[in-house]
Amino acid sequence: MDARTNNRVKIGVLGASGYTGAELVRLLSHHPAAEFAFLTADRQAGKPYGDVFPHLARLDLPDLIAVDDADWGSADVVFCGLPHGTTQKIVATVLEAAPATRVVDLSADFRLSDTDAYAEWYGHPHWAPEWQPEAVYGLTEVHREAIRRARLVANPGCYTTTCELPLIPLVTTGLIDPDTIIIDAKSGVSGAGRGEKLGSLHSEMSESVQAYGLKGHFHVAEMEQELGNAAGHPVTITLTPHLIPMNRGILATCYVRLADAGVDDLRACLAEAYADEPFVHVLTEGVAPATRDVRGSNHCRIAVFPARPAGTAIVLSVTDNLVKGASGQAIQNMNVMLDLPETAGLEQEALFP
Amino acid sequence: MDARTNNRVKIGVLGASGYTGAELVRLLSHHPAAEFAFLTADRQAGKPYGDVFPHLARLDLPDLIAVDDADWGSADVVFCGLPHGTTQKIVATVLEAAPATRVVDLSADFRLSDTDAYAEWYGHPHWAPEWQPEAVYGLTEVHREAIRRARLVANPGCYTTTCELPLIPLVTTGLIDPDTIIIDAKSGVSGAGRGEKLGSLHSEMSESVQAYGLKGHFHVAEMEQELGNAAGHPVTITLTPHLIPMNRGILATCYVRLADAGVDDLRACLAEAYADEPFVHVLTEGVAPATRDVRGSNHCRIAVFPARPAGTAIVLSVTDNLVKGASGQAIQNMNVMLDLPETAGLEQEALFP
Amino acid sequence: MDARTNNRVKIGVLGASGYTGAELVRLLSHHPAAEFAFLTADRQAGKPYGDVFPHLARLDLPDLIAVDDADWGSADVVFCGLPHGTTQKIVATVLEAAPATRVVDLSADFRLSDTDAYAEWYGHPHWAPEWQPEAVYGLTEVHREAIRRARLVANPGCYTTTCELPLIPLVTTGLIDPDTIIIDAKSGVSGAGRGEKLGSLHSEMSESVQAYGLKGHFHVAEMEQELGNAAGHPVTITLTPHLIPMNRGILATCYVRLADAGVDDLRACLAEAYADEPFVHVLTEGVAPATRDVRGSNHCRIAVFPARPAGTAIVLSVTDNLVKGASGQAIQNMNVMLDLPETAGLEQEALFP
Amino acid sequence: MDARTNNRVKIGVLGASGYTGAELVRLLSHHPAAEFAFLTADRQAGKPYGDVFPHLARLDLPDLIAVDDADWGSADVVFCGLPHGTTQKIVATVLEAAPATRVVDLSADFRLSDTDAYAEWYGHPHWAPEWQPEAVYGLTEVHREAIRRARLVANPGCYTTTCELPLIPLVTTGLIDPDTIIIDAKSGVSGAGRGEKLGSLHSEMSESVQAYGLKGHFHVAEMEQELGNAAGHPVTITLTPHLIPMNRGILATCYVRLADAGVDDLRACLAEAYADEPFVHVLTEGVAPATRDVRGSNHCRIAVFPARPAGTAIVLSVTDNLVKGASGQAIQNMNVMLDLPETAGLEQEALFP
Repeated sequence: MDARTNNRVKIGVLGASGYTGAELVRLLSHHPAAEFAFLTADRQAGKPYGDVFPHLARLDLPDLIAVDDADWGSADVVFCGLPHGTTQKIVATVLEAAPATRVVDLSADFRLSDTDAYAEWYGHPHWAPEWQPEAVYGLTEVHREAIRRARLVANPGCYTTTCELPLIPLVTTGLIDPDTIIIDAKSGVSGAGRGEKLGSLHSEMSESVQAYGLKGHFHVAEMEQELGNAAGHPVTITLTPHLIPMNRGILATCYVRLADAGVDDLRACLAEAYADEPFVHVLTEGVAPATRDVRGSNHCRIAVFPARPAGTAIVLSVTDNLVKGASGQAIQNMNVMLDLPETAGLEQEALFP
Repeated sequence: MDARTNNRVKIGVLGASGYTGAELVRLLSHHPAAEFAFLTADRQAGKPYGDVFPHLARLDLPDLIAVDDADWGSADVVFCGLPHGTTQKIVATVLEAAPATRVVDLSADFRLSDTDAYAEWYGHPHWAPEWQPEAVYGLTEVHREAIRRARLVANPGCYTTTCELPLIPLVTTGLIDPDTIIIDAKSGVSGAGRGEKLGSLHSEMSESVQAYGLKGHFHVAEMEQELGNAAGHPVTITLTPHLIPMNRGILATCYVRLADAGVDDLRACLAEAYADEPFVHVLTEGVAPATRDVRGSNHCRIAVFPARPAGTAIVLSVTDNLVKGASGQAIQNMNVMLDLPETAGLEQEALFP
Repeated sequence: MDARTNNRVKIGVLGASGYTGAELVRLLSHHPAAEFAFLTADRQAGKPYGDVFPHLARLDLPDLIAVDDADWGSADVVFCGLPHGTTQKIVATVLEAAPATRVVDLSADFRLSDTDAYAEWYGHPHWAPEWQPEAVYGLTEVHREAIRRARLVANPGCYTTTCELPLIPLVTTGLIDPDTIIIDAKSGVSGAGRGEKLGSLHSEMSESVQAYGLKGHFHVAEMEQELGNAAGHPVTITLTPHLIPMNRGILATCYVRLADAGVDDLRACLAEAYADEPFVHVLTEGVAPATRDVRGSNHCRIAVFPARPAGTAIVLSVTDNLVKGASGQAIQNMNVMLDLPETAGLEQEALFP
Repeated sequence: MDARTNNRVKIGVLGASGYTGAELVRLLSHHPAAEFAFLTADRQAGKPYGDVFPHLARLDLPDLIAVDDADWGSADVVFCGLPHGTTQKIVATVLEAAPATRVVDLSADFRLSDTDAYAEWYGHPHWAPEWQPEAVYGLTEVHREAIRRARLVANPGCYTTTCELPLIPLVTTGLIDPDTIIIDAKSGVSGAGRGEKLGSLHSEMSESVQAYGLKGHFHVAEMEQELGNAAGHPVTITLTPHLIPMNRGILATCYVRLADAGVDDLRACLAEAYADEPFVHVLTEGVAPATRDVRGSNHCRIAVFPARPAGTAIVLSVTDNLVKGASGQAIQNMNVMLDLPETAGLEQEALFP
């Protein structure tokens, strides 16, 4: 029996053949306290991981297996990177079968605390309503204490992470009007996943920009839940996601109305809120963030600018949608859950150019 | 003497070594009624045009000359593609030296009718205030009749063209509140010109998105002038330009408040306004435009969507920044000025993929 | 009955929902002598063309129909843009059903004159061997006279067009050794078509370059056939295709051994061979071609450089894979077949940037 | 006095405002045994490093200083990322002023052991011929023992590293003919540096591919030196570099003639040569490398394929030009020089997508 192995956190990854799965493996393979118990991918079961992701071929990893062949009890933490809508039942299975195992779910399936709201937004009933009360919304910097005690963390989406980090403190302190927030968000293509879709083809995507999800993007429900909690009353927001011809990165341009506050107050509020946070950085006056500055890293960079009409401001926020917007924050949450150093496995700098 | 030649419109292009200059040459070389009198580019004077732009090397074009060597009288129409701030004096020279020559200026130098406002926005006095009253703002679909009679057309910028085409009819008819317009605009890199700037390098720009001009983009003045004229009172807008890792294209996402109108009213208003226009297309309900759909063409595609908060809407508009946003519209204006078919030289479809 | 209509060439396009189909439609819609009889796309039958390709939505086009619903006799010329291997039977059907109709096939199905060689390279028998003798290989500049009389033209592939234009004259004249040719070819992603394949995703393709088809790319058979014909004996070549993160364009870097000739002789040979050709341009000494210089156009640009080892040279050639490498050349061939001006519909300049 | 500090290797970086400089800082900031003594950049002297490279703004780094203000003795190792041709004199100054300091030069200035050959290739005399004999060519896997003892390492270029890793063992063992090697190399744009050059603009580079350096690329001299040493006699090679529209990565496609060997022998030779190397990976039969698989990492992936003509083969090799092709290998060399674990600071996986 290998003593080193036994001291490490055993990790299971469900849906390891997607981009968020690969990103979990990339980051966790250098986590000082983690090792892999299993990696699942039904359609690729039996393959060496490096056949699916050659950039990770040199790592010593278990071969991919089918979800049904996973031994839940062998994992201390299961990361679930399965598609939205397919996750609730399997997470319920894991939680029931392996009482000591904790789950970080990267899908949207447990992000809405209200299962009726879930049914309305997603067009089908919640398949594991009995587990919803256990789910803690995993925006680490905001819900750290609840995450620490959680068995099931609902990891936020990339849009919501990028928007909520700057907006929640501003809404909580009452510095901005929570009822007139407009968010124009720009995302790289990897956010659409590794599925073979026409809209994700290089020839379709490159040299073009477009809005999408204009009939109602499901991330809105999640944002309205969290911003409403911060405001103390239900809020309605405008969110327009756009697809940008790049792989990674998300930029949220948020148009807000000041509530008896100046632009400098907003910047000061955010600077204070995140003063001790390792991953959230409030930029000095006049500096605007670019997604290249966080590419491949778990960092979020935030800036506040005055807008031309009096009493309004622009709040800018960037993350890497696959890291702080998905797998990086999932690992950050695991670190919190297990009382490991929060930055473990996440210390890599952004890759530029 | 060649009779065919004499029937053609003689064209001079100032600043022919920039991207808008190249685009003028590309389009005008297939214009049925145009031929080139001269092409200027001070730093490249003496060179064959194909040495500067190999994609046009096969055309039979005059060599580049210095501006000072141009014979103004040899041109019926002079297109001026010089940098902002350097154009006023030279346009004055042309207009004075060659009374029969007409000018389409692609810079921002004559776009503001109020020379005091110009001085304020640009930080220096207007260098040809005596000619400003002659300048007609060249948004063709809106100012066609005045353009027809103009000697000097101030061609609008790419951001303004893209935003004003959808917004002016909505403001004019009072369907939207002109005082709360927020425009989030996304532009390809060619809008920054062919200058050798750090921010335009491939390694800096690709795989990244960012906002810029946050301290006040000069296009705002132009938009506020035109939207204010449409509204009948001064307006203040929010405009945030963003740089997108693509060469061509601009997408404006406009957030507007409805004034006693429904979203369908907005769409109907625009459809009616542009029903007979060859270059402006209002999309049917539910269809969103992408910049790839207008790449290389003089078309503008517009869509209207409801936004989530009651009483608000999203207006989307795309153009190719170098064509309808610059050189294409300049040629369209020339066609109007000379009573040529308005689509002459501009009938090319978009290039996709 | 519309007299104008009756004077026009009626065009049918099979497989109009692919990129080569769209490119045929883009170009033919501005052809002075063409109009569309039908456009087929089985999976999209019933849809307006603009729903499938919004960049062409403004054109007045017939809706898409299923192949089985096409009236072959209604078309003077049928362009066949169906996948390799599916075309032989349908072309046979067209040719038999409509004796006056002529066919330009853009697939590889009729490019090999030897049906046994076809069976060997493609792993299945030729499905229409009786029609193979009718097929003329459609490299316009080389086989113009045979194309003029052909009922069935096998339009060359993009790799082959780009390579054969420079190499055939050099092999024919004996200036280079035909038995040691090495071609390193770089293609944009649109060459892989509009199919929803993992390898064509933006996230997979962008920011990466790779070789493919290393086990034997079928274009080799076509090139060896044509170069062998030029040499007068069978030749074996090396061809390595590479995927480049761009949409359009193909660059062939050909490494050749001189046969009692100097590098200048090669350039002179090519300059003479293409002196009167509207679409093939031999660059002056020291100038290298880039794919951006032909983007969207039917042009081919060729350069010859000395290589470092004595007696060797590098021949560079660029085309747009969707135009001269596919749909443009197909239209050029139609023009030849119908004795129309060869440049009709193909006069557009390259789009840069 | 901080004991921890004193045990660390003090690093100086000359030319820290370029891409290789930034990459040194990115990697060394996580090196377990390194810390920065100074970072120089004459034109940016006085600025915080994060103003020049915001992606590294969160690091605790010394401000940029002018080269003349550097205290050479304060650094145990100086990395020199200055432009080619400007480095010899400054390296001589460092080596003379600080006898205990060791230098890894990333420029080409000390790569040619023959100073006459240097003068011929570069068009000017070598400015520090007295130090040339001290310089060890820093292809780590090949010259490890000499590097260990070196005071001055001439770090190889990105093209040469990528080509020499596969070719040197094949030439050394006599498995391939060293006199007929043809290398077709494809590089991302970052290889051209952060200089504000027309050819590096996004609008020029993206959506295009081209060859360059056709009149003789200086990397040829370096490759011929090393391959000639391996062969035991002078060799002449063909190398054609190409610019690819991506930021990072280099792919070398090498066309070789077998010398009494089979393709499998080549693969076996390389597999054996690099069996114990942490950064060089020989792929199994049939698998081709892509640059995305090494992006951001210090790895090199190599594959061997048969070419169609008997007796020939294709050898493929990929690296990240800024890591194994520059800064990563420089750090690897430092690790060897200082007897640190060779992978220290270089363990990061590739970033994909």
